[in-house]
Amino acid sequence: MIKQLTKKSFLDQLNKQAAPSQDKETIFETAKTVIQAIREEKDAALFQYIEKFDGPLTGDIEVSKEERKAAWEKVDQRTIQALERAAANIRKFHQKQIKESKFMQHDAEIVSGQLYRPIEKVGIYVPGGTACYPSSVLMNAIPAALAGVEKVIMVSPARQGGEIAPILSVAADISGVDTIYKVGGIQAVAALSYGTESVEKVDKIVGPGNAYVAAAKSLVYGDVGIDMIAGPSEVAIIADESAKAKHIASDLIAQAEHDTLARAYLFTTSKSLIEETERELVEQLEALPRQAIATEALTRFGGLVLVTSLTEAFELSNLMAPEHLEVQIDHALDYLRFIKHAGSVFLGHYTPESLGDYYAGPNHVLPTSGTAKFSSGLSVDDFVKKTTFLYYSKEALEQSKDDIVTIATEEQLAGHARAVLKRFED
Amino acid sequence: MIKQLTKKSFLDQLNKQAAPSQDKETIFETAKTVIQAIREEKDAALFQYIEKFDGPLTGDIEVSKEERKAAWEKVDQRTIQALERAAANIRKFHQKQIKESKFMQHDAEIVSGQLYRPIEKVGIYVPGGTACYPSSVLMNAIPAALAGVEKVIMVSPARQGGEIAPILSVAADISGVDTIYKVGGIQAVAALSYGTESVEKVDKIVGPGNAYVAAAKSLVYGDVGIDMIAGPSEVAIIADESAKAKHIASDLIAQAEHDTLARAYLFTTSKSLIEETERELVEQLEALPRQAIATEALTRFGGLVLVTSLTEAFELSNLMAPEHLEVQIDHALDYLRFIKHAGSVFLGHYTPESLGDYYAGPNHVLPTSGTAKFSSGLSVDDFVKKTTFLYYSKEALEQSKDDIVTIATEEQLAGHARAVLKRFED
Repeated sequence: MIKQLTKKSFLDQLNKQAAPSQDKETIFETAKTVIQAIREEKDAALFQYIEKFDGPLTGDIEVSKEERKAAWEKVDQRTIQALERAAANIRKFHQKQIKESKFMQHDAEIVSGQLYRPIEKVGIYVPGGTACYPSSVLMNAIPAALAGVEKVIMVSPARQGGEIAPILSVAADISGVDTIYKVGGIQAVAALSYGTESVEKVDKIVGPGNAYVAAAKSLVYGDVGIDMIAGPSEVAIIADESAKAKHIASDLIAQAEHDTLARAYLFTTSKSLIEETERELVEQLEALPRQAIATEALTRFGGLVLVTSLTEAFELSNLMAPEHLEVQIDHALDYLRFIKHAGSVFLGHYTPESLGDYYAGPNHVLPTSGTAKFSSGLSVDDFVKKTTFLYYSKEALEQSKDDIVTIATEEQLAGHARAVLKRFED
Repeated sequence: MIKQLTKKSFLDQLNKQAAPSQDKETIFETAKTVIQAIREEKDAALFQYIEKFDGPLTGDIEVSKEERKAAWEKVDQRTIQALERAAANIRKFHQKQIKESKFMQHDAEIVSGQLYRPIEKVGIYVPGGTACYPSSVLMNAIPAALAGVEKVIMVSPARQGGEIAPILSVAADISGVDTIYKVGGIQAVAALSYGTESVEKVDKIVGPGNAYVAAAKSLVYGDVGIDMIAGPSEVAIIADESAKAKHIASDLIAQAEHDTLARAYLFTTSKSLIEETERELVEQLEALPRQAIATEALTRFGGLVLVTSLTEAFELSNLMAPEHLEVQIDHALDYLRFIKHAGSVFLGHYTPESLGDYYAGPNHVLPTSGTAKFSSGLSVDDFVKKTTFLYYSKEALEQSKDDIVTIATEEQLAGHARAVLKRFED
């Protein structure tokens, strides 16, 4: 089961996880083949791969209006209400991310500024099959809709029987998805990137997926935009004597049940908390439906790290740059200032990660594997572009003329200098 | 020379340019080999590739304080002053991009918000050798410094003789670069991404480069952040009868002199403007130092497109999503509202692209090849990350408890439900 790690053995384990794997090469080769085929042969190749990877497709690839309406009858009211309240919270949080076009300078001689414009068409990848995550629909589609994206297209593989899980269709309606296609995996990413006769091309693809989806996204990057390359999910918990082992164990398990590759670490100043957490883990794992998955993840990629101070705990956390960071300390808000790199932060004793995963408002699509050092969770920003603009009057250009000519000459781009000089020839 | 195109032949030419090339595969294979070698053997491989691709390296790989000081004596005062004034303009514009951490909600029961935190270490790629672009140093380093990046590292291949061009070193000082390494190409990107004994690892790499640098950046993406994959530079000019052919021709040429792959298009409602522009191009190209390059670019990737209305001109431009868009129309600011996709916009008759390239303030690192449909030019935002945060009181969590359990149960993640329930067991 979960190991006690020192600072050094924790860092070693972290570095080992970052090494490239052989698997990755094979997955990339598969993705390359599928993408090229769909790019060239379009629907002909697409339907072949759907049949092969997702299973037989009954009916149209696009979920019809009737199917979407019928889905509402198949989901119980309690669940619909919970999703609607979650959507309201998510909308409220993300609304404050909306930015307005603005001027940097605005006078008679010089005007400059920056426009915010929505991306026109966005594709949202939602895992399907056995897994079924309506919360992912909300987290991806709501910021897109708030940004003003004209067309939000969702893709998800059909279940056996050829239909999308009704709950995903309902979540799509709640969060403003325009079109749903029943397709998953590499083939979904390829079809959205280049378009086929039956799947509309988009400008950007977001959303989580397995290693194949991640590989496909990184291969189409540049031809379309992508949000990020997601790795296995992870949590780091910083706790002191005020924390309860019961809470910590339940949060480590919630993380570990996702995936056998999930990562879950505790950094604490309390030796007794480590021992109690070990006992709690054993007890709580017993009745867990996904016990095998969680146990494997905790054993291989988990760790309980005793630190000498909270300062050291935040240092380790900043080195890890975890996707999720919980701070189970009294007056936790006061510790926010020590956090340099993390996807999303959960403060205090009553803010479990699952509250944020589903419900409270912040996005759950977050940078993993240390990429929080240079990237951010999904937000409205991911669905808008900034276009800078500039106006100079003739007088303003004349005043700047000599400097521009000087720099252009230094860079040996005479045409650049002349473009200014030509305007003052007459 | 430059062709007259119809709407249809323009779109055909644009689509052809987007097709993948065989070259690209070869370049990627080379990049893969170099990156793997440097990742594994570090300095041993790095210095071998510097010798092979950049030429012999005399002295240290890091530019010393003395060398940086000496560089100031080798650049004339006029150039230094022009760069300093450009830097001041760039700083003034980008300063308004700085965002503050903020609360989304802040009351006794719930606190949520979003932190802005700088990336710790950033690498800036600056082309060197025959080309020498101090303006690129300014455009990349100034936003990084404004964002609060702790360490800004610049890489650029040494010239013959083993030194960095003095003007690049001066530009680095002006714009806040901490460290300069004399290394370019794939080997620079690899060393910055994974670190070697003599080159410090960074978290993100930005800046323009040739096809090899672009390939290397896309291969290391995920292990470090990158700004974008830059393609050939491009301009679209929208003009009506009020425009002057002389201005248009000089701006098309300024774009075309960059590179034989550069793209330069005019969309105009005026047949006579097209004819005059053709004459002007011939005349202005005559005395141009980089005549061969500009002529090839204009012939292969340029075009003069007669449109039936300005509405159609903006439609074509939005389809192209050009890196640079000039609007040479009277009252040009009034047309800003028709622009959906463009990297940066230059409005009016006295706002040539070269004014923005060097001097006015907006960034010149911009999305190319239609990627302005989903991405933005370089800004302070590229050097900060957003970390969302959340605090719930026990009472607030209790109120949300049932909804979270409902959704978690729906997603078959019992551990997620329990992480909430465990907090109310006692």
